[in-house]
Amino acid sequence: MSEEHCATHQAEHHHGYTADKDAYLKRLRRIEGQVRGIQRMVDEDVYCIDILTQVSAINKALHSVSIQLLEDHVRHCVVDAATQAKATGNTAPLDDKISEAMAAITRLIKS
Amino acid sequence: MSEEHCATHQAEHHHGYTADKDAYLKRLRRIEGQVRGIQRMVDEDVYCIDILTQVSAINKALHSVSIQLLEDHVRHCVVDAATQAKATGNTAPLDDKISEAMAAITRLIKS
Amino acid sequence: MSEEHCATHQAEHHHGYTADKDAYLKRLRRIEGQVRGIQRMVDEDVYCIDILTQVSAINKALHSVSIQLLEDHVRHCVVDAATQAKATGNTAPLDDKISEAMAAITRLIKS
Amino acid sequence: MSEEHCATHQAEHHHGYTADKDAYLKRLRRIEGQVRGIQRMVDEDVYCIDILTQVSAINKALHSVSIQLLEDHVRHCVVDAATQAKATGNTAPLDDKISEAMAAITRLIKS
Repeated sequence: MSEEHCATHQAEHHHGYTADKDAYLKRLRRIEGQVRGIQRMVDEDVYCIDILTQVSAINKALHSVSIQLLEDHVRHCVVDAATQAKATGNTAPLDDKISEAMAAITRLIKS
Repeated sequence: MSEEHCATHQAEHHHGYTADKDAYLKRLRRIEGQVRGIQRMVDEDVYCIDILTQVSAINKALHSVSIQLLEDHVRHCVVDAATQAKATGNTAPLDDKISEAMAAITRLIKS
Repeated sequence: MSEEHCATHQAEHHHGYTADKDAYLKRLRRIEGQVRGIQRMVDEDVYCIDILTQVSAINKALHSVSIQLLEDHVRHCVVDAATQAKATGNTAPLDDKISEAMAAITRLIKS
Repeated sequence: MSEEHCATHQAEHHHGYTADKDAYLKRLRRIEGQVRGIQRMVDEDVYCIDILTQVSAINKALHSVSIQLLEDHVRHCVVDAATQAKATGNTAPLDDKISEAMAAITRLIKS
């Protein structure tokens, strides 16, 4: 897995990212609870369709987290790479960042 | 949530469903672990794109579980309702079962 | 491409399917018009985001047609195969029909 | 529909966008042909599952066009807005561009 962080993003880790991080963790813990809820439903022989409804709810919650993560990424890493490209005249790192973000979006659309 | 079970489905609970149930629970526990893995990634400031890749993997795993649940549902509840409809001449319960399954599929496609 | 038709389905072609067929053709012609509309938008350099909105609208319309086709298929071919299986005691054709329908649903969810 | 174009994008319309535009139009005309193909299939009573396979193929082709359009949009309009924001110190137009792109991505994921 890439260890890379864009500069702006890292700076924010030390300054104002904590509130957001807590919000993400809270949402993810709720999703974890929903997955455990489905285990309980399977264990108690709950009607399949009701389980499917819950699975759809989890998929929605995960998509919503993904979109937020992606938005944060674009607002920090991509924007930062764009201003770097302008300042240095070297557009290669920006091109890579955008290709990488597009690949993530493609995976999201297909998952 | 509906407490309803189709007869065939219930019968199977007592006979041969246990193996499948264990397989579902195993997959769901793995998904739960993946969700916890994402919490760890957020906590350790892992690069967003790598987190997004993991979220896509969870969505895929959940879709795969959904499709399996849906298939089991069609093979048992819908098929049972179809033979009941033929035997009794009353197609209303079958119509309801199919409408309900289609609604679940629509939610899956949109989630 | 498979030439196969389930008996019920074929019977309906000669009896009462025409009205539905016209409704499908009408929806598909509308979708065709929407695709041509996007060509016009590209040709006239319309803002990308507005084009993307239209593409999403077409995807939605296609998903809606798919779900209707799938529902018709389950109501006729799958139900017919279920009653055949009960009557003959041979469940292999029904198993195939369900596997085939599940594969179609999986493709829809991923497309 | 918005008439807005980002400056970079417009400049490109007059310079080097034509080749891309032709590629988009070619893909869209192919999709239009695929939609007409489905009309023919419905008209000739082709087996539902085969029609569904074709619908999934169109959805895939449309998603692929969307992702390309989105990538072009990010590479031109969003990047341009980012460098403008850096130059002027006014980040509001960039924020709007990103929110708008995220809304488009959300629609794509849900469609």
